[in-house]
Amino acid sequence: MTKQLRLNAFDMNSAMHNSHGLWKHPENKRQDSYKDISYWTDLAKLLEKGKFDAIFFADVVGVYDVYQQSKAPSIKQAMQVPINDPALLVSAMASVTKHLSFAVTVSTTYEHPFSNARRFSTLDHLTNGRVAWNIVTSYLPNAARNFGLEGLIKHDERYDIADDYLDTSYKLWETSWEDDAIVNDRQADVYIDPDKVHEINHEGPYFKVEGPHLSEPSLQRTPVLFQAGTSARGRDFAAKHAECIFVGGPTPAKVKELVADLKTRVEAHGRKREDVLIFSFLSVIVAESKVDAEQKLEEYNQHWSSLAAKAQFGASGYDIAEFEDKDPDDIFSYDKPTEGGHYKAATLTKDNAKALTVGEALKRFDGITNQVIVGDPDHVAAEIQTLFTESDVDGFNLNHFVTPSDLEDFVSLVVPKLQASGIYKQDYAEGTFRKKLFPHLGNKLPDTHRAKSFKHEQALS
Amino acid sequence: MTKQLRLNAFDMNSAMHNSHGLWKHPENKRQDSYKDISYWTDLAKLLEKGKFDAIFFADVVGVYDVYQQSKAPSIKQAMQVPINDPALLVSAMASVTKHLSFAVTVSTTYEHPFSNARRFSTLDHLTNGRVAWNIVTSYLPNAARNFGLEGLIKHDERYDIADDYLDTSYKLWETSWEDDAIVNDRQADVYIDPDKVHEINHEGPYFKVEGPHLSEPSLQRTPVLFQAGTSARGRDFAAKHAECIFVGGPTPAKVKELVADLKTRVEAHGRKREDVLIFSFLSVIVAESKVDAEQKLEEYNQHWSSLAAKAQFGASGYDIAEFEDKDPDDIFSYDKPTEGGHYKAATLTKDNAKALTVGEALKRFDGITNQVIVGDPDHVAAEIQTLFTESDVDGFNLNHFVTPSDLEDFVSLVVPKLQASGIYKQDYAEGTFRKKLFPHLGNKLPDTHRAKSFKHEQALS
Repeated sequence: MTKQLRLNAFDMNSAMHNSHGLWKHPENKRQDSYKDISYWTDLAKLLEKGKFDAIFFADVVGVYDVYQQSKAPSIKQAMQVPINDPALLVSAMASVTKHLSFAVTVSTTYEHPFSNARRFSTLDHLTNGRVAWNIVTSYLPNAARNFGLEGLIKHDERYDIADDYLDTSYKLWETSWEDDAIVNDRQADVYIDPDKVHEINHEGPYFKVEGPHLSEPSLQRTPVLFQAGTSARGRDFAAKHAECIFVGGPTPAKVKELVADLKTRVEAHGRKREDVLIFSFLSVIVAESKVDAEQKLEEYNQHWSSLAAKAQFGASGYDIAEFEDKDPDDIFSYDKPTEGGHYKAATLTKDNAKALTVGEALKRFDGITNQVIVGDPDHVAAEIQTLFTESDVDGFNLNHFVTPSDLEDFVSLVVPKLQASGIYKQDYAEGTFRKKLFPHLGNKLPDTHRAKSFKHEQALS
Repeated sequence: MTKQLRLNAFDMNSAMHNSHGLWKHPENKRQDSYKDISYWTDLAKLLEKGKFDAIFFADVVGVYDVYQQSKAPSIKQAMQVPINDPALLVSAMASVTKHLSFAVTVSTTYEHPFSNARRFSTLDHLTNGRVAWNIVTSYLPNAARNFGLEGLIKHDERYDIADDYLDTSYKLWETSWEDDAIVNDRQADVYIDPDKVHEINHEGPYFKVEGPHLSEPSLQRTPVLFQAGTSARGRDFAAKHAECIFVGGPTPAKVKELVADLKTRVEAHGRKREDVLIFSFLSVIVAESKVDAEQKLEEYNQHWSSLAAKAQFGASGYDIAEFEDKDPDDIFSYDKPTEGGHYKAATLTKDNAKALTVGEALKRFDGITNQVIVGDPDHVAAEIQTLFTESDVDGFNLNHFVTPSDLEDFVSLVVPKLQASGIYKQDYAEGTFRKKLFPHLGNKLPDTHRAKSFKHEQALS
């Protein structure tokens, strides 16, 4: 069978996600409607109609304030602010769908693993196993200061914390309740057998948790684990824990290199290559005809905001204001490691110094992402297939610029072409999100995953 | 106009709430269905049909393990374990209702105020202002050990933390975003005016938060505030912060005393008596005829579990196992203050020592609560009216034993009688939860509330 393409809608519970300046576009309903349940339930129905695997909710818990060392640029452009909690959307969206899954971002730096584990178990119950956790360690300095810290915890230590966090979570999800703990024995007047419910008594370098877990086992137990590490430490973390890895790169060839590197790291952790799926980023501007699509792009570009783009670039840890007047060759000598950076924790190189200049990485919508495909449905579907093959990924997180129209157009125009080509499902498989992604595994993590290395503690009674 | 009765359904996102042993009752669907969205959306529709003001979600983040110093009794009886996160139910329930409101319990001891504020703002947006926060400081020792502590923080310090927590929250909700911050100015290419979004720069004894708040202002800004303090410190906290106070007492006269005390304390904080509503606890067993109702009670009692009741009594901080063989007069001499106790942080007195004996407070369903009314619809409605008048409360949190049948019977049999008597609404008023509860106030907290004493910080830009 042809390798099947996976698609997630890349989103955020915010007024604007990656749509720099497009609150000005007359067709954009987003900034007015993201606060309404009906926006999200309608979107869920649309995505299920388009056979999307999941909606992937990115999240931040601070305001971007690296550019010009100010929060004002982000706020002026509503660049990922305001932003509401994504987990709270899930039950409404799940109630109007049967197959669409939900990947929710939560930071291991600012939420406690005990309550986080209960939240994901609750969602896994309510959705019948359609939930994933996108694990982040958070890169925004303001987020750190919102949670009582002086500034960002250093990059590698954030991953050390995340490792301990994951181990705590695995013990709660995988070892605390045995499968047959609920005995429902009326004769003996025992609903749950206390011998089959276990404290975890976790004592790690960062977390100390007694347990037991408060939720009974859900279909998946551990939610499907997403991660987007790009630094060496981040990639190693992803290879150790994640089942779906989100990567980016300037060209399909670079993405392919990253995929190969990640798969090697996955095997180094004793895991199988086929137990991990890799997703990259995709933007599409589609219309019935090439001319219409190009006109749409032109309209988007008219509303484009360089201020929003520069504010978001602060995620790299670099303040682009320091480079705006400089020649890239001068920037090369600028040597400043970024601890907080999302993309890397490394010294500035000539390549990314050039990318920092407004003329290159911060182009308008035709150049803002690694790949933006513009054209009629046949062209778009063909380009997606090429990208899919050349980058060797398993699927894409599909961006939107103007919503809901971008996604409506994608579902009505592109999805049928992808289906006709044989690389995209005509209908969903049955079962949980993990079972849909990994039919050879089923509902639960495989034995080769670290989560399965923990044994339960002695019985309570 | 006759004083109007308010009703909240008292619930929990758990297999069993206060239904000791009733997982064995053949009509109880609860333990199998609390994990399903449809259970909660059906319940929401039922409560809206019955014109309930709100569903009140209690919560705990640990297992009761005071009785016999063991978790086994609670677990055997599913006594508030397993228990899932209640906040995650709200969007689904809100999507099928228009007026029902949602009071969600969150502990100020274990969740960070920054993420908590965003969660409540998110829910207030999604529900169009139908959200309340039940503020608790948490009394279970296991909860403390689930969040990395050695044991419970002392009772009064928990309230000191809660005071700082509330001040942090008020600054985020009330002062961070001005009403007219969103200017949507296409000409100037400014969606939000950064001069009208403010950091909070809170530095209290327990919390340090930079801000700004991540959510734009919701209809209520601060959710309606519920609290259930019974100790002197707890009552003072409630009088300072809460808009709805949940009280308990052994007789209507005792409840009336508490109501008077609370109203006096409210005034001492510069607030108006009419800006606070008091709720007490109510259990009803109703059927078409007296005989049927009494038979239903008898059935419930057949399944009653003393083990579950004793486990729950651990909330007092006392291990009833130490008293089970003793004469109440001997118990009187037992002098042991409880720091963690839910009901009080005081020395054991003769009254509550007696209550500790199985024969008294831990009676079966006919005696387990302060007030349980058993009978036909006319009798139940009349008794509710008497209780309402004699205890001088504004409404009740209605308990259930077997669900959904107890609530179905209440809505079909009792609600029409209460409506006919003129003390209960025929239909909802329009607007937010706060406006429904306090028509003289509207959507926002009044100026006499502490939340309004904070001014915004200087502008960002």
